[in-house]
Amino acid sequence: MLQLDAQAIQDIAVGAAVLGTGGGGDPTLGRLMAQQAVAQHGPIALLSLDELADEEWVIPTAMMGAPTVLVEKIPSGNEVIEAFQMIERHLQCQAAATASIEAGGVNSMIPLVVAAALHIPVLDADGMGRAFPELQMVTPTLHGVAATPMVVADEKGNQVLLQTPDNQWTERLARTATIAMGCSACIALYAMQGRVAKRALIPGTLSLAAKIGYTLRTSKQTNPLQALTSLLAGRQLCQGKITDVQRRTEGGFARGELQIAGAGLDAGQTFRLSFQNENLVFWRGDRPEVTVPDLLSVVDEQTGLPITTEALRYGLRIAVLAFPCHAQWRTPEGLALVGPRYFGYDIDYVPLHS
Amino acid sequence: MLQLDAQAIQDIAVGAAVLGTGGGGDPTLGRLMAQQAVAQHGPIALLSLDELADEEWVIPTAMMGAPTVLVEKIPSGNEVIEAFQMIERHLQCQAAATASIEAGGVNSMIPLVVAAALHIPVLDADGMGRAFPELQMVTPTLHGVAATPMVVADEKGNQVLLQTPDNQWTERLARTATIAMGCSACIALYAMQGRVAKRALIPGTLSLAAKIGYTLRTSKQTNPLQALTSLLAGRQLCQGKITDVQRRTEGGFARGELQIAGAGLDAGQTFRLSFQNENLVFWRGDRPEVTVPDLLSVVDEQTGLPITTEALRYGLRIAVLAFPCHAQWRTPEGLALVGPRYFGYDIDYVPLHS
Repeated sequence: MLQLDAQAIQDIAVGAAVLGTGGGGDPTLGRLMAQQAVAQHGPIALLSLDELADEEWVIPTAMMGAPTVLVEKIPSGNEVIEAFQMIERHLQCQAAATASIEAGGVNSMIPLVVAAALHIPVLDADGMGRAFPELQMVTPTLHGVAATPMVVADEKGNQVLLQTPDNQWTERLARTATIAMGCSACIALYAMQGRVAKRALIPGTLSLAAKIGYTLRTSKQTNPLQALTSLLAGRQLCQGKITDVQRRTEGGFARGELQIAGAGLDAGQTFRLSFQNENLVFWRGDRPEVTVPDLLSVVDEQTGLPITTEALRYGLRIAVLAFPCHAQWRTPEGLALVGPRYFGYDIDYVPLHS
Repeated sequence: MLQLDAQAIQDIAVGAAVLGTGGGGDPTLGRLMAQQAVAQHGPIALLSLDELADEEWVIPTAMMGAPTVLVEKIPSGNEVIEAFQMIERHLQCQAAATASIEAGGVNSMIPLVVAAALHIPVLDADGMGRAFPELQMVTPTLHGVAATPMVVADEKGNQVLLQTPDNQWTERLARTATIAMGCSACIALYAMQGRVAKRALIPGTLSLAAKIGYTLRTSKQTNPLQALTSLLAGRQLCQGKITDVQRRTEGGFARGELQIAGAGLDAGQTFRLSFQNENLVFWRGDRPEVTVPDLLSVVDEQTGLPITTEALRYGLRIAVLAFPCHAQWRTPEGLALVGPRYFGYDIDYVPLHS
């Protein structure tokens, strides 16, 4: 098993924020949490999906809520361990590993905090290969895996254990609990055994994130944006300056829209990006060009470093990059769960070509 | 142990609705649910607090939500049993009895449904001696008993188990779950052992409700209102006609106000009654005369039968009766929890004199 050191953690935090497409939390915050946990408890082992035995349990952990709140209401770390252990007690199992449910600057790091504190490995996999705003939007849902038993826990000592008839109800009840707890909370959910995890999860997400972070760190002097689009088989959609950000915290989400005035080769054009925690639709003028489930990442024009939704602000010079999503999301079932129509856009999904 | 037959159940439903002071649910609905359970599973034993052994567990059960919704969204009966058993599993105990957490036409009957189905007795006690709108408003809170572990369950198969640092947080999280489930749900909470129950619960509430129901049933030809005020050491505040009902379902509660034009000895006077599920303040003109925690019951002018908040409507000829609350509510701690100021009224509590 690979051991994750402080450098690997930093690379994963940055890379996962690229895959997080605006959501999944701020990578600096996530990295600090994970590095503190490693400093306190020792290194973390990275377990590949193949290494997880069929009968062994994995319990993914994450944060839930509006990223705009998350950056100011930092978890203590204890509540996510409480959530993890409450699932263990409920299932009467001892989990062999934890895992990310989505890629993101915080949501790839939360499992590292749990893994370090409990001296268990973290699985090199996730449930999206990117980030999505609602918790039923994971490949395990496509494979019939229940989100429940799920625990929502906060820093005040509240714990809510959910059992629901389907993952949409889990989302609804967990969201209301998260809002009542102050719009951000820690969660443990989608507990599954190895034989299920091997087909239901997307393999290699953490090592891919590490590769992205490494690429950005080592290509600063050359062309980080090109290195990134090349690594992820994507393309650059535009470059320019943010001229407006409309953002509201609504229904427990950060919703809004970004306006971009093109620069360089894109001078004279205007672009828009709609988001609900994550970036959902990229508009060239009034024409939708790339939509969920393909990945839309806002990065710094110079460094290629990812900019999360809550950090978007007037005047930033950015590029918008697009990357193809995992093949599971391009099936009819995948598109029903996370396609543009689910989010209220009357747009057909057209797969990104690079 | 006393056995409750169909007649006793009917008397309890009616009597508990008088103590329910407008809340706690419609007695006809409650009675039908309990009588059906008895017809299906056999009679129910009534256990006095003294008969509960110190180490035996009691798990109270109830419905939560807006009574206006409850009358149209009738529980299946299974969800409350699920809730009860989920607490048993969580505490790894087998409860000796269930109990009412509040008096009310439905909330005195829900425990009978559980008791009949599981062949356990129901405790002759409750946590209020009346009904209150929020779940921390029980004598167990005054005795430091935690509401959690608590389960909120609905007819769709959703179950939410709560662990909270205090009973106010339980109320907040359970209320949001109840609203998300459609504004009415079944609950199990305030699990406690006999030694705690003996000091924390109010004894004899079901047998008192049975006595009230019996009194109303047998005094129809004489003077039911006088029989009622005499039995409960209360007094009649007014009689008259309902001239207006303002009612809204807000924050998961039925809130509003009742206008009454006096009749008979009260002709020429006007009265108001403010409620939040339960009746909170009785106004003679603009002067508050009786407030929570004393009991305010609206009854039919002729029969003395209780009228719950959701059944109030223009033209009904009613009387408003007041009864003294349990002594525990008249302490400083009791008034801080359920006095008029908690409900936002700038009024000092003045104990009712009969």
